[in-house]
Amino acid sequence: MKALIVYAHPEPQSFNNAMKDCAEKTLRSMGWEVEVSDLYAQGFKAVADGDDFKDRVDPAFLKYAAEQAHASADGAGFCDDVAAEIEKLKSADLLIFQFPMWWFGFPAILKGWVDRVFAAGTIYGGDIGMFSEGLFRGKRALVSFTSGATKQTYSGVGLYGRADVTLWPIENGVLNFAGFSVLPHFQAEAPAKLDDAGRKAILENWASYLRSIDDHTPLEFHDLGDFDQSKAWTLRAGIKGRTVGQDGVGE
Amino acid sequence: MKALIVYAHPEPQSFNNAMKDCAEKTLRSMGWEVEVSDLYAQGFKAVADGDDFKDRVDPAFLKYAAEQAHASADGAGFCDDVAAEIEKLKSADLLIFQFPMWWFGFPAILKGWVDRVFAAGTIYGGDIGMFSEGLFRGKRALVSFTSGATKQTYSGVGLYGRADVTLWPIENGVLNFAGFSVLPHFQAEAPAKLDDAGRKAILENWASYLRSIDDHTPLEFHDLGDFDQSKAWTLRAGIKGRTVGQDGVGE
Repeated sequence: MKALIVYAHPEPQSFNNAMKDCAEKTLRSMGWEVEVSDLYAQGFKAVADGDDFKDRVDPAFLKYAAEQAHASADGAGFCDDVAAEIEKLKSADLLIFQFPMWWFGFPAILKGWVDRVFAAGTIYGGDIGMFSEGLFRGKRALVSFTSGATKQTYSGVGLYGRADVTLWPIENGVLNFAGFSVLPHFQAEAPAKLDDAGRKAILENWASYLRSIDDHTPLEFHDLGDFDQSKAWTLRAGIKGRTVGQDGVGE
Repeated sequence: MKALIVYAHPEPQSFNNAMKDCAEKTLRSMGWEVEVSDLYAQGFKAVADGDDFKDRVDPAFLKYAAEQAHASADGAGFCDDVAAEIEKLKSADLLIFQFPMWWFGFPAILKGWVDRVFAAGTIYGGDIGMFSEGLFRGKRALVSFTSGATKQTYSGVGLYGRADVTLWPIENGVLNFAGFSVLPHFQAEAPAKLDDAGRKAILENWASYLRSIDDHTPLEFHDLGDFDQSKAWTLRAGIKGRTVGQDGVGE
């Protein structure tokens, strides 16, 4: 089994880095191969633009997804850094995003990794399915993040609100969209406010989470077949919404 | 009145660009001053790192928010591009984010604008309040985006799920967090699939939305006082959750 950890933190001595190292070590001890994309160390380009393609289908008008589709076809191609990340992603059985929660989401460098690497014509679109019929069906992914605030603050009674709402764009919009089974997220609560023993305890919990990775039940999302493409991809009659994003009401 | 439009699209001939121009022209015709941050044209640096500060409080360990706080204090300072964007932001009575929805959120370059410009010690943190007591209380902000999918697809019965869930990290986590009154978002549905008349109709709706900007009721969020800081910022007894992120249950 192969894992890809996509890791985004500017400080090599950060707790996020320790979490990345912990995951790498734990998975290797379980016999996994582990690949790491350390985006800051790589100087990864965050901004999607026309330079991402070796050849343009329309050099006069940049339609990014159309250029991705063109680059996915024979004879065209992505720039080298995108091509390398696509290869890592496609060979992974498990994808882990490791990052500090900044403004309720990815640091920009990690959002840019998704914008550039989850490419039309390669990861989705054209003949490739989406959601439960997506390219990565049967493979797993999960979000691991540090936060300044506690789990209570990120809850349905907390100031920041439900973590599953905050994570909906990533867990549903990125991972589930591409077909991954999405395992429950791992939140490292306010490590900056903890002492060494507290931080060590989080790392032990994180290692334990990974050692028992086969025991975690993926998040529940709808099957693609629950929606009717001919009706703007809305739920078929008799199927009730059952996620934080699809409550089936309010429309 | 002054507006700041923060605009992110790599193609100057894009419909997003037309929406930005439409907003600029409409607001000017109403007597507003309008400033535009055209992030792609500016070559805006998306990635938050140690180069964002003229002087470091700790050159050996990058804690980004601590450096922001230091840069906010007398005698330190942000790098020039961040300083310029902060000035624009602080002088705006209305903030508009104009972007294509990529992977259920901001293009990375726009996320990076938030990561770098919504700085600790300047926009929030320290003596500055947050949410209903935030720096920008009394000022307005809104999200304007184009989407490949329709409003039905972005609904509680749609494949992509509720738009207010997808936008929670931006509308609550960025705008409401900083104290803005958040006006209802404007979604331009699938402009790439429309003919010229269809695209013109969207621009007319967008201009009309802006001409009647004083008539739009801001989204409802909790007051900061609804939460008890001594209890990890959870809702006080008797106060029921009433947003998509705070349903008051599930905990």
